[in-house]
Amino acid sequence: MFTGLSAFPLTPLDEDGIDEGAFTRLVARLATAGVDSIAPLGSTGSYAYLQRKERARLTRLAVEAAAGVPVMVGIGALRTKDVLANAADAQAAGASAVLLAPVSYQLLTDDEVLGLYTDVTAELSVPLCVYDNPTTTRFTFSDDLHAEIAQLPNVGAIKLPGPGAAERLPGLRGRVPETVALGVSGDWFAAEALAAGADVWFSVIGGLFPEAALAIVRREALDLEPLWALFRTYGGIRVIAAAAALRGFTGEPNLPRPLIPAPSAEVAAALDQVGL
Amino acid sequence: MFTGLSAFPLTPLDEDGIDEGAFTRLVARLATAGVDSIAPLGSTGSYAYLQRKERARLTRLAVEAAAGVPVMVGIGALRTKDVLANAADAQAAGASAVLLAPVSYQLLTDDEVLGLYTDVTAELSVPLCVYDNPTTTRFTFSDDLHAEIAQLPNVGAIKLPGPGAAERLPGLRGRVPETVALGVSGDWFAAEALAAGADVWFSVIGGLFPEAALAIVRREALDLEPLWALFRTYGGIRVIAAAAALRGFTGEPNLPRPLIPAPSAEVAAALDQVGL
Repeated sequence: MFTGLSAFPLTPLDEDGIDEGAFTRLVARLATAGVDSIAPLGSTGSYAYLQRKERARLTRLAVEAAAGVPVMVGIGALRTKDVLANAADAQAAGASAVLLAPVSYQLLTDDEVLGLYTDVTAELSVPLCVYDNPTTTRFTFSDDLHAEIAQLPNVGAIKLPGPGAAERLPGLRGRVPETVALGVSGDWFAAEALAAGADVWFSVIGGLFPEAALAIVRREALDLEPLWALFRTYGGIRVIAAAAALRGFTGEPNLPRPLIPAPSAEVAAALDQVGL
Repeated sequence: MFTGLSAFPLTPLDEDGIDEGAFTRLVARLATAGVDSIAPLGSTGSYAYLQRKERARLTRLAVEAAAGVPVMVGIGALRTKDVLANAADAQAAGASAVLLAPVSYQLLTDDEVLGLYTDVTAELSVPLCVYDNPTTTRFTFSDDLHAEIAQLPNVGAIKLPGPGAAERLPGLRGRVPETVALGVSGDWFAAEALAAGADVWFSVIGGLFPEAALAIVRREALDLEPLWALFRTYGGIRVIAAAAALRGFTGEPNLPRPLIPAPSAEVAAALDQVGL
């Protein structure tokens, strides 16, 4: 399942709850568009901001709406015991894979992160994608640590951060089992990383505009730079939240406070400019 | 209450639950030692790793064990709605103040952090201490933002990070209301910051060895550098967790996995060297 386009939809929510109808429609739309996998409850899906029960319910809804397209869900949490609980819930709800970032409050050490992945992979019956996201976790994976974790049972993929991914891929490829796919996030690095041999693009834009992302995976020339510029300024989730509301996919507000979407006017101008 | 020594005890816990007896004894010991305030559920108290109900219960236990010494508890969470719930619980449980860091998964903007403090301070009837901790929150407060937040109702103190605190204090003092105390964390910066006029030291070591911390507040010469070296290497919570077990204050393990205490032998040697 770790190939081509893995689309990361938003979880539309406000202070009163989750808009399950809008969420389900976003997921169904990705399946119809023909993405290779769907990853609700990624960073863009605000997994870190949701309760265990909400995450379990959204996984069930997503698996149903995905209509056979493999679903991968984020199971990250600050405590190992909560990660294990989320992993059990995800599998019970029919997820085809789980995504795990070493979420932190206290900055984590290499030994702690290795311990986390050791504990969690031992309990899995579906593949796990190692989520290397130094921006949100403040943890930097060395290639040595990736190579060590990739030997654990049930590790199926590594989601690399965009900056430096293209340069890092060839060396890492030789150090992980052939069964471990290497993918990239950070949308504006995708074209370069795919050209450098990435197996899969874990995509924020693909969660809302799957056709555009699929075109990039097919190596069609598509200039989304005006959007990437906003991603770099505001963060992908804030731009996609504004875009989702602008294009009628969700109501407003659609992010958990204190998060605030990117300025609507700027996002509208960029969307118009790139034809989305 | 924001004066002298504010002691931050550990919350001893393992994967099966919280050792409430050990927690209560740690708090009671601080009250007996004569600290100025007690801050369970700070970073050292693992507030970020605990559920809402656990935090509310620990607050009640701490207020009782503190026997009249003011108790401040951390109310931080990723979502504003959860911070508000923690704030209500803390007040209902008898906390004299609340401590709020802008905890993040998505990196927060200045506008989002200002919005968080605006929303939360509007609902309080006890003072709030702004918890400026860039290591765990990945958010850097400018002096401008501190000055703006300090104008909000119920802001009683700012807990500054150790690095640069002594240099920052004089400028910040002129920009916040007189009712807002300025304090420092990062134990090895405490002596310097107190000499530079900090009102209060928010202390990790003071949560386990209050007499030593009180001596530092009295400006008695006390060389704890061997411990501070370990704090810098492993992080204060990992050193204090090892020290608490070594000195019989808690069982083992006493931290939430994936966190791992500092190596016991190194901590034992440092404790022996400084006579604690």
